[in-house]
Amino acid sequence: MCGTDGCLIKGFSVPFATPENDTRDTFTTINLDHGDPTMYELYWSKIGNKCDITFNGDNSLSYFANGKSLCWFLESKLEEQIKRLHNVVGSAIVDDHYIVVGTVSSQLMQAALYALSPTYQLEPISVVSATPFYSAYPEVMDFVRSGLHKWAGDARTFKKNGSYIEFITSPNNPDGVIREPVVNGDQGKLIYDLAYYWPQYIVITSPANHDVMLFTIFKCTGHAGSRIGWALVKDKEVARKMTKFMEISTIGVSKEAQLRAAKILEVICNSCLDPKMENFFEYSKSLMINRWNRLRQVVMANDLFVLQKYPLQYCLFRKDFYESHPAFAWLIYKGGEEEDCEKLLKEHKIHTRSGSRFGSDSRNVRISMLSRDEDFNIFLKRLMAIQGPTNGN
Amino acid sequence: MCGTDGCLIKGFSVPFATPENDTRDTFTTINLDHGDPTMYELYWSKIGNKCDITFNGDNSLSYFANGKSLCWFLESKLEEQIKRLHNVVGSAIVDDHYIVVGTVSSQLMQAALYALSPTYQLEPISVVSATPFYSAYPEVMDFVRSGLHKWAGDARTFKKNGSYIEFITSPNNPDGVIREPVVNGDQGKLIYDLAYYWPQYIVITSPANHDVMLFTIFKCTGHAGSRIGWALVKDKEVARKMTKFMEISTIGVSKEAQLRAAKILEVICNSCLDPKMENFFEYSKSLMINRWNRLRQVVMANDLFVLQKYPLQYCLFRKDFYESHPAFAWLIYKGGEEEDCEKLLKEHKIHTRSGSRFGSDSRNVRISMLSRDEDFNIFLKRLMAIQGPTNGN
Repeated sequence: MCGTDGCLIKGFSVPFATPENDTRDTFTTINLDHGDPTMYELYWSKIGNKCDITFNGDNSLSYFANGKSLCWFLESKLEEQIKRLHNVVGSAIVDDHYIVVGTVSSQLMQAALYALSPTYQLEPISVVSATPFYSAYPEVMDFVRSGLHKWAGDARTFKKNGSYIEFITSPNNPDGVIREPVVNGDQGKLIYDLAYYWPQYIVITSPANHDVMLFTIFKCTGHAGSRIGWALVKDKEVARKMTKFMEISTIGVSKEAQLRAAKILEVICNSCLDPKMENFFEYSKSLMINRWNRLRQVVMANDLFVLQKYPLQYCLFRKDFYESHPAFAWLIYKGGEEEDCEKLLKEHKIHTRSGSRFGSDSRNVRISMLSRDEDFNIFLKRLMAIQGPTNGN
Repeated sequence: MCGTDGCLIKGFSVPFATPENDTRDTFTTINLDHGDPTMYELYWSKIGNKCDITFNGDNSLSYFANGKSLCWFLESKLEEQIKRLHNVVGSAIVDDHYIVVGTVSSQLMQAALYALSPTYQLEPISVVSATPFYSAYPEVMDFVRSGLHKWAGDARTFKKNGSYIEFITSPNNPDGVIREPVVNGDQGKLIYDLAYYWPQYIVITSPANHDVMLFTIFKCTGHAGSRIGWALVKDKEVARKMTKFMEISTIGVSKEAQLRAAKILEVICNSCLDPKMENFFEYSKSLMINRWNRLRQVVMANDLFVLQKYPLQYCLFRKDFYESHPAFAWLIYKGGEEEDCEKLLKEHKIHTRSGSRFGSDSRNVRISMLSRDEDFNIFLKRLMAIQGPTNGN
């Protein structure tokens, strides 16, 4: 297992940040605001032609897919590999769920809201999620001022009389915590956003098994350009309405993206089963452990911040005890509540996302842990250089 | 040029419908309801490897595209080929427009509505289109009960006090007619839906040059599985808001689909410029002429229906006089206004879309002209066999 030193993972070198390798213009801000998952690039460049896929001129001409799924535009190859991946990893129960494919989680969120919102109700249904919640939720729920649903903010302060929809983001974006429903009202409908529910980020203690679960390929494999997500849905009518949403909004999902996603998932499953291949999740977990250890070391050294802690648990997939190593670090500035951590880091050329964007306070920031090595190393170096009022300025 | 006989277009055989080649189970209904453009399959299967595109495991990992477009997820190769295609065909002015890429026209319609709807207005803005209008408009405008805009039906009966948005579908879906704005009010915003504005369907008399124009690849080339469309937008702020819509709803557009679309458009442009290649538009125009001639012959023979007529005009692209040969036939039953043409054809195992779905009456139906040869031939045979009250039943 990787420690805190510069780490060589089966041929993949992960160097430490040193002043010598920070060749970047010191005036350039490192962007760790968004979660662009470019850190897996090296794995995919070393995978060779195993993951190649070629489209000829006459492929995929029709609207319709070749499968017999309720979701009429779902390619059967993708359906097969989604089921295989969940079974190999043990991340979710798929056998009694319908699969609905979408253009990443954002579209599937809207589809799930469309399917779960009451059709004949004068007032839009309230949609909540516990703070800190995914910063895009308010905008995704309300950008077209839908009469079906409206964003109602923090699930913890929601008055639970009447119907509502609760988003449970687990592990949570931004803070990586494994979550349960908060409102627990009689008339609640639950949507589990499991974009980061993969073994490089969390400990797989049991397969997820909920009524509506949303997944996305790119947080798992690093292919953000592909825009593929899927929902596992227990109720047939809900799956049908989600499919209808996709039909009206984009008349399906690009077949090229679906077929390439199927190929990528196939390679990942093979890598877990074929001892001659580099296991993708072993590789990516080692990267995450390495980055988190180095970040915790820096945070401890400059004594200005606190990081979220995660419990040690037994992982059914990796057959050992691990902590979570989330895709985002949730960094808390030790100063007063009115301190602006995003501003402080910006002054040190580190672009992060303020806690205020997540319904939390500005002492917190969310930091992407999935950038390229070069950016991550510069980030650590700059974070190390920060001195607060108590130990310098 | 192709006549009404069985036609051989530079090696592509288009056979006539004969009882011998209707080998399909006579109980199977031919589906000409949707516009799945499978008729170009033979062209693409004969194009060989010129249109092949391969994705490696490490391609397109980032959210971001490699271009410098205002639309941050637009791949520069696609941008280049879109501009090239419009210039080669002369179908639109691109140089003073911004390009916004989307998941086909449906998403771009919603993006355009989002961008053009007033932000600070209590009542949603009215959206209209002249009957017969594209059957999906009411659903696309209203499916999430947006507070920004609402479907207000036929542009011809719209009271033009105040602001509104008018969709101008040209050539029109369902009837293939070239259209101009109808309301002509002081506070109107216009969206031109030019999905079928390609030389196999219409006569190119001048390049389109409007504030907001929507195009889609699949009605042009036949690649319905790719889900790629684009908007040409004059105003920077409108283009920016449309990009924002795409960002919130799907965080961009699949790169695989964009890059394959770029390859397909490149091949089509090459086919127009390289005399050694089969010109795609010549090929597809010949197919359309052949199908339309045969359909008109059958309609004339059984004397139960009328087809829309189109003027003869000089085509700047093909340097000759042509009529339109739309992607849909708009068939009008000669019986009384209460006659149900869709029902009549359904009894003869032909599935079409009723005029009532387009805000018109049920004497009309829309029929896809883009099916595979086999289906089109069976359709003609079945249409020929229909006998109305005046000449049979």
